[in-house]
Amino acid sequence: MRRSRLARLKTGASTNSLGHDGAGVHNWRARTSVVERTRALCGLLLSERGEASGVALARNLITLYEAMDRASREAFFDRLARDFDPNPAAIARAAQKYQESPTPEAFLALSATVEAPRQELFRRINFAPGGTRTLVAMRGHLLEFLRSRPHLSSVEFDLKHLLGSWFNRGFLRLERIDWHTSAEVLEKLIQYEAVHEINGWPDLRRRLAKDRRCFGFFHPALPDEPLIFVEVALVRGQVAALEPLLDLNAPVTDPVTANTAVFYSINNCLKGLRGISFGSFLIKQVTEELRLEWAEIKRYITLSPLPDFARALREDGVNMGSTHFPRERLAWLLRDYAGALTRRAGCDDAVEALGRLLERPLDHRRVLAAPLSRLALVYLTQLKHDGTALDPVAQFHLANGARLERINPFANLRPYGLSRSFGVMANYRYLPGELEHNHERFLCGGEIAMAPKLKRDYEEMAAPEHGRVVIAAHPEAK
Amino acid sequence: MRRSRLARLKTGASTNSLGHDGAGVHNWRARTSVVERTRALCGLLLSERGEASGVALARNLITLYEAMDRASREAFFDRLARDFDPNPAAIARAAQKYQESPTPEAFLALSATVEAPRQELFRRINFAPGGTRTLVAMRGHLLEFLRSRPHLSSVEFDLKHLLGSWFNRGFLRLERIDWHTSAEVLEKLIQYEAVHEINGWPDLRRRLAKDRRCFGFFHPALPDEPLIFVEVALVRGQVAALEPLLDLNAPVTDPVTANTAVFYSINNCLKGLRGISFGSFLIKQVTEELRLEWAEIKRYITLSPLPDFARALREDGVNMGSTHFPRERLAWLLRDYAGALTRRAGCDDAVEALGRLLERPLDHRRVLAAPLSRLALVYLTQLKHDGTALDPVAQFHLANGARLERINPFANLRPYGLSRSFGVMANYRYLPGELEHNHERFLCGGEIAMAPKLKRDYEEMAAPEHGRVVIAAHPEAK
Amino acid sequence: MRRSRLARLKTGASTNSLGHDGAGVHNWRARTSVVERTRALCGLLLSERGEASGVALARNLITLYEAMDRASREAFFDRLARDFDPNPAAIARAAQKYQESPTPEAFLALSATVEAPRQELFRRINFAPGGTRTLVAMRGHLLEFLRSRPHLSSVEFDLKHLLGSWFNRGFLRLERIDWHTSAEVLEKLIQYEAVHEINGWPDLRRRLAKDRRCFGFFHPALPDEPLIFVEVALVRGQVAALEPLLDLNAPVTDPVTANTAVFYSINNCLKGLRGISFGSFLIKQVTEELRLEWAEIKRYITLSPLPDFARALREDGVNMGSTHFPRERLAWLLRDYAGALTRRAGCDDAVEALGRLLERPLDHRRVLAAPLSRLALVYLTQLKHDGTALDPVAQFHLANGARLERINPFANLRPYGLSRSFGVMANYRYLPGELEHNHERFLCGGEIAMAPKLKRDYEEMAAPEHGRVVIAAHPEAK
Amino acid sequence: MRRSRLARLKTGASTNSLGHDGAGVHNWRARTSVVERTRALCGLLLSERGEASGVALARNLITLYEAMDRASREAFFDRLARDFDPNPAAIARAAQKYQESPTPEAFLALSATVEAPRQELFRRINFAPGGTRTLVAMRGHLLEFLRSRPHLSSVEFDLKHLLGSWFNRGFLRLERIDWHTSAEVLEKLIQYEAVHEINGWPDLRRRLAKDRRCFGFFHPALPDEPLIFVEVALVRGQVAALEPLLDLNAPVTDPVTANTAVFYSINNCLKGLRGISFGSFLIKQVTEELRLEWAEIKRYITLSPLPDFARALREDGVNMGSTHFPRERLAWLLRDYAGALTRRAGCDDAVEALGRLLERPLDHRRVLAAPLSRLALVYLTQLKHDGTALDPVAQFHLANGARLERINPFANLRPYGLSRSFGVMANYRYLPGELEHNHERFLCGGEIAMAPKLKRDYEEMAAPEHGRVVIAAHPEAK
Repeated sequence: MRRSRLARLKTGASTNSLGHDGAGVHNWRARTSVVERTRALCGLLLSERGEASGVALARNLITLYEAMDRASREAFFDRLARDFDPNPAAIARAAQKYQESPTPEAFLALSATVEAPRQELFRRINFAPGGTRTLVAMRGHLLEFLRSRPHLSSVEFDLKHLLGSWFNRGFLRLERIDWHTSAEVLEKLIQYEAVHEINGWPDLRRRLAKDRRCFGFFHPALPDEPLIFVEVALVRGQVAALEPLLDLNAPVTDPVTANTAVFYSINNCLKGLRGISFGSFLIKQVTEELRLEWAEIKRYITLSPLPDFARALREDGVNMGSTHFPRERLAWLLRDYAGALTRRAGCDDAVEALGRLLERPLDHRRVLAAPLSRLALVYLTQLKHDGTALDPVAQFHLANGARLERINPFANLRPYGLSRSFGVMANYRYLPGELEHNHERFLCGGEIAMAPKLKRDYEEMAAPEHGRVVIAAHPEAK
Repeated sequence: MRRSRLARLKTGASTNSLGHDGAGVHNWRARTSVVERTRALCGLLLSERGEASGVALARNLITLYEAMDRASREAFFDRLARDFDPNPAAIARAAQKYQESPTPEAFLALSATVEAPRQELFRRINFAPGGTRTLVAMRGHLLEFLRSRPHLSSVEFDLKHLLGSWFNRGFLRLERIDWHTSAEVLEKLIQYEAVHEINGWPDLRRRLAKDRRCFGFFHPALPDEPLIFVEVALVRGQVAALEPLLDLNAPVTDPVTANTAVFYSINNCLKGLRGISFGSFLIKQVTEELRLEWAEIKRYITLSPLPDFARALREDGVNMGSTHFPRERLAWLLRDYAGALTRRAGCDDAVEALGRLLERPLDHRRVLAAPLSRLALVYLTQLKHDGTALDPVAQFHLANGARLERINPFANLRPYGLSRSFGVMANYRYLPGELEHNHERFLCGGEIAMAPKLKRDYEEMAAPEHGRVVIAAHPEAK
Repeated sequence: MRRSRLARLKTGASTNSLGHDGAGVHNWRARTSVVERTRALCGLLLSERGEASGVALARNLITLYEAMDRASREAFFDRLARDFDPNPAAIARAAQKYQESPTPEAFLALSATVEAPRQELFRRINFAPGGTRTLVAMRGHLLEFLRSRPHLSSVEFDLKHLLGSWFNRGFLRLERIDWHTSAEVLEKLIQYEAVHEINGWPDLRRRLAKDRRCFGFFHPALPDEPLIFVEVALVRGQVAALEPLLDLNAPVTDPVTANTAVFYSINNCLKGLRGISFGSFLIKQVTEELRLEWAEIKRYITLSPLPDFARALREDGVNMGSTHFPRERLAWLLRDYAGALTRRAGCDDAVEALGRLLERPLDHRRVLAAPLSRLALVYLTQLKHDGTALDPVAQFHLANGARLERINPFANLRPYGLSRSFGVMANYRYLPGELEHNHERFLCGGEIAMAPKLKRDYEEMAAPEHGRVVIAAHPEAK
Repeated sequence: MRRSRLARLKTGASTNSLGHDGAGVHNWRARTSVVERTRALCGLLLSERGEASGVALARNLITLYEAMDRASREAFFDRLARDFDPNPAAIARAAQKYQESPTPEAFLALSATVEAPRQELFRRINFAPGGTRTLVAMRGHLLEFLRSRPHLSSVEFDLKHLLGSWFNRGFLRLERIDWHTSAEVLEKLIQYEAVHEINGWPDLRRRLAKDRRCFGFFHPALPDEPLIFVEVALVRGQVAALEPLLDLNAPVTDPVTANTAVFYSINNCLKGLRGISFGSFLIKQVTEELRLEWAEIKRYITLSPLPDFARALREDGVNMGSTHFPRERLAWLLRDYAGALTRRAGCDDAVEALGRLLERPLDHRRVLAAPLSRLALVYLTQLKHDGTALDPVAQFHLANGARLERINPFANLRPYGLSRSFGVMANYRYLPGELEHNHERFLCGGEIAMAPKLKRDYEEMAAPEHGRVVIAAHPEAK
């Protein structure tokens, strides 16, 4: 009897026995049917039969899942949350026993009760080819529902825990990506590049020329899928602007002459792995690879956006002044540049003048450069109440142990660069010998490492009477 | 300050600053030192610093672990059990809260408390190259202590859970092993073959000739390490004896003429993965591979030992009769052969006669073949109280869904074959269409699938008045 | 002394010591210098020193060659023709001796004298990495000069002989090219596709989708360089038109449903290998590969252009009538369609009518289809005096043993299709069992294999009184 | 008709239609038959049909060839010599024409006539898989007959010319061979090692440990076949004896401590490539590879045998004195050691004393070391009349540009070392900066490069009145 039910499930995977009612009902029935069939397969996969025919059952389950539309997936996730949750009564019993007598047996029993059955289900889905890919996709889909259906967070928690364990650093391979890489993978760079869009294959080709390097992490179960990748330019000297790096027609230089590696774009690829962190490992290993390849390269540096700089300066998108930068504070920070700004803008108030000039920043580069640099410096060194940096990119690099090296006004003149950060970009520098120290100072005390020159700027800016706390709201200051 | 401590730990990995007292104290101090240094590194690896310098810390930890002797490992495991266990008080609190109010938050808090910190530690050890190898080795070492130090079972439980997840079927690659395989891997076949010893490279070479197939599962993190492998002979017709398969000088036949694939040896390799099951997956996928390669091969069959047959028949190693086979039952089972046995042995009692003749079984092949076959059939179909087969090899194949196909007396005349099973071997047959059905009947009802001829033998043997329960102690008979 | 000369040559490879005279003289001097340096390196490479330092000398020589401009190459080829030719006097002497006494020794001496020293030179250039690539490029360059400098043909002869031997079928690897192939190789498909231009990466991607196959031959010394490639579409049923195959947006079908493999484009890549034939080997092996992959595919067929069809019909590019198709013959061939053509064109003469209608063929598809098909059939079966087919594509496929299967009017409506062949395309079919037979009948007797229906068309067209010879000028008819 | 003949040939490849006469006649007929069938296939392969069905014909030809016994091969080579030779009359005509008028056309005609048709035949045999392997084997077989059937040398000449071109340095890949290499290849090291026999897999394993390196050249058409390989030990300091290098139980050292790479065995593998030289290329590239891997290694040196030393000293195998070393010369060379030798041997004559002591050299190591070193030095610097060194190993290394570095008495105490060279071995040193210079001095002037110390020994030995010519018979001295 169970056999015929399985047979039905199996054949059902490709056919639908539906009535002749209206399309809405039809869809609802079809959806119910696919969700119910999938749920039943989940049950079988967790049963004895799952041991004998795990691969086949998992393969069917994957096929069904792939055929689901958004609504079916939502219903399916509901079933995963409801039917494959740990049993509260059993947990209560096991917890009770453990409290009465905390023996190893009682502990193991509690442990076993606390793990949701869907964890084993997910592991068994992985028996079939394509299982890992499906589970990653599943979490990607699931994340879309979390806001509207918060009870799914327990399912998401289990998936994240599992994927976090499986995509452990030790299982990732660093691979060089260049023009010898397959189109399959290269196409994904175009698709996933979110920092500085790749405009088709000729743009990609330039970014993979011999004065560039691109590296990605790959997992053995997803061989054609970069998990994260970083684009690096090998140059001579400072890199204070983006355009030369993105120019398709920039002459290709001989990397033998380079002394600096610029990490100018780093991108996570798979939504389903969001929150599982690869970036720090990637930058460190790429730095190591480059060091081995090019002994002459002495400087490992990023050219990074300040994604929320504009938003931090003006709350409503027009006027200057915000929670993070109240008008009085802005005025104080602009004190050295007030004359120039007001003259140029033809208005009395420096803050208002700044706001006006920033409407067409490229027309006022000369007068805006210095105040923007100062504001950016304050913005980048600003910490939130939880001790993390206000700027997410700064948070990433500072937590990695990099130091803030330089601030470059008018470095990114592309529309998104101007609108999000008035064109400002920052360099963070990875000094291998300092990483560990900086990391700890930042995480434990909120101290931000800076290049000496920047440090001086920072200290000069703060008049003694104002003190450090005024400049950047470090948590310990509260 | 912490920095210098780390530095000490790092340099300490290769040097020992020891006093000039006696060797015993010296060793104890060295051991303490290495264990303490390792334990301290574990703490660091789990701390903030572990995030910034995880790879480096894990690498040091691995180096230290590799240098440990048995006693140091024991001490280190003790520290893992004691210092990286979940906190009972915290569990009690979280359990209490969950009982009071089983909210998702309370559940997540309980979950987090229940997971031992060493699980995260193990995952971080895996950051470094060689991490997986080390963790597998660690569990192998740990298993040696379980009997004498049962409190280590919680550490072992965590390692097994993690490795079970990481060595999931979906991450394993099936690889053909032949003479084109690296010596690195081939050498391991010689080392790990435990069923029918491989006597050096010429023996191995014959087992990899073109009328043979060998397949293994590999994990990407251990590329030179077969996890399990199976040896297959492609032959024409029945395989009722072992020697032709192991004969180095047997002529190599053209596999085009074969109609039968004989799985004559299957071996797990890594002690640290004991209890994580690959065999069923392996046999099924190898069957599939062979089916695709050789459409003419219609029969997939094993030639398997009965490892505990002799022990099951005679308890004290000399006289016949045991818990499983009391003398009266033996007498009843031998009833049809009593005359021949007693005549040959020159004694009155059939059971005693059997015992005498089995002292030199090769001298009495003709008279022993039939009674041994019958006893083996009863032995192989015997179930334990928990519903598993008495014979571990039978348990493996029957649970996989294979059927018992044939019993071959005097099939293995090598010393270990004679001493452990009086030379008897069994064929189990994998019929793809029957596997799932057999598996379920066996697991749910203890029913054992047999070839029709064997089934008839079995039924004939049982006189109506005795019934099936007398023959094989199936659990449902109780 | 020789040492310092070599040193000069080596350093000279990258620097130029030039005077301050005018640019013209400057260039001439530079060129002379590079040519003389290269020529001197050739001498060294052939000397004793070439044995000790062959790799280094060859590497220098390649660097120098790569830096040459067209004029330098011309001068260098002159030196190769003059300075590395066999010695006529020595040949005369050896020939004399051989005539006097044809002993083995005399033969070996003659052999050795006849081989040009540059053959050994070319072989030694191949000592260095990139040598093969350079020699192929060299022949590509050389072919450009043959018309204007016919004495270079002896150099070309030696290079072709050598490359023909090195690019022997046995050294080529067939490789499937698809989206998993490197961009390096894929880019070359775009570059070398000369039959039906590939319009960028999206076009290429469609041609490599799962209902397509692309295969190329590669040589181990040029791993990123396809030597020849063929594009295949897997379809169901006849393929009578090009557009569906080239349509970027055509839905991708499941190849499981296909029964026909259409070879719709085959391209040689490297100019330096011109005249060394790979196409026949490629089609045959691809047919074999497809047969193994898709048992259901029963028909292997091309969709081929008639590159010179329009030129064959009208000599001066406007009026109909030519050496191959004199007006009287055209009139006779059009006899069955004369009424329709003259009516449509509004003129009395069928040949003139055809000419007028063909000025805008797409406006007159219905009336032109039949006469174009007949003319194409006659054109394709026309042989030249040397027994090869008038049409080069027909010659290639017929000599391979394919049969002419179908003629498709208005199959290629792209500008080049209309201008070169009034839109007509042909199918040639590869029937594995017939290839050898057809090949021999064609090569020995000029007999052209045709599909039965085409054969009937052909025979009907020829009224008995006109006879076969009038239709197609088969050589045996003379 | 030709078709059925081909069919007969094809099926004939596996069956024999033979009469019922005696076995001798039977064999002769079978052999004739296989030779005639092969010869006929050769004809077809060279014909038009060869173009259409070249791969299939070549495959059949290879199958037939592989089935031949020695006598059949001899007969087949006779046919190749007779039936596929150039046509003497045609050569005579072409030579006559060329002499009358040496035009390019006349030259090309002569060239074409001079090339034996079997060259094209060999190239076409290479169309089929395994072709290259067969042609190499063919030359190996052919070399065995050259002495007894000198007229086959023309066939051998053609094969050598072709294989020399195909196994050009540029097509060879250097590969590291270690324990990760396939057993297929490793087994061949055991088989082909001819200098210092490898005694099974444990011996091989030691020679591939981490303080050793082994490299070989491979050709893409023979991927499992090393063409030549060299064994290298990475050591610290001088290597004056063989045994430590061959000792299975010698501790494996860390190559980080090494400063010297010792090339202690170099072996050509395939008989069919005899006379096509790879050794010089191999040593140079391996030196380069090691230099890149281990910057600390400063000395690249061989430990080489003196294969004919004993034979050079005593003609009839017993008494000292020979053509190369007449007794008087021996006496003069031994003058400084005469006293010690005669005392020890208990006889008056130094030469005779030497002969006696050398019967059991190990008993007289102390007294023999110095005279053996001197004699070896003279032997190694001895040139033949054609200017090559008397010792073939010396000739190889000196022609490569190495210098004679050291002479080590009692370095090889294995039986073959004592019997062939009284235990003496030599070090040749490869100094990258000197190779070219030494090569030229040796080839042009017969000058032998030596380490300074050896040079002094050499010069001291020669009393002024005797002069250099007395010591080593340099050709310029005559």
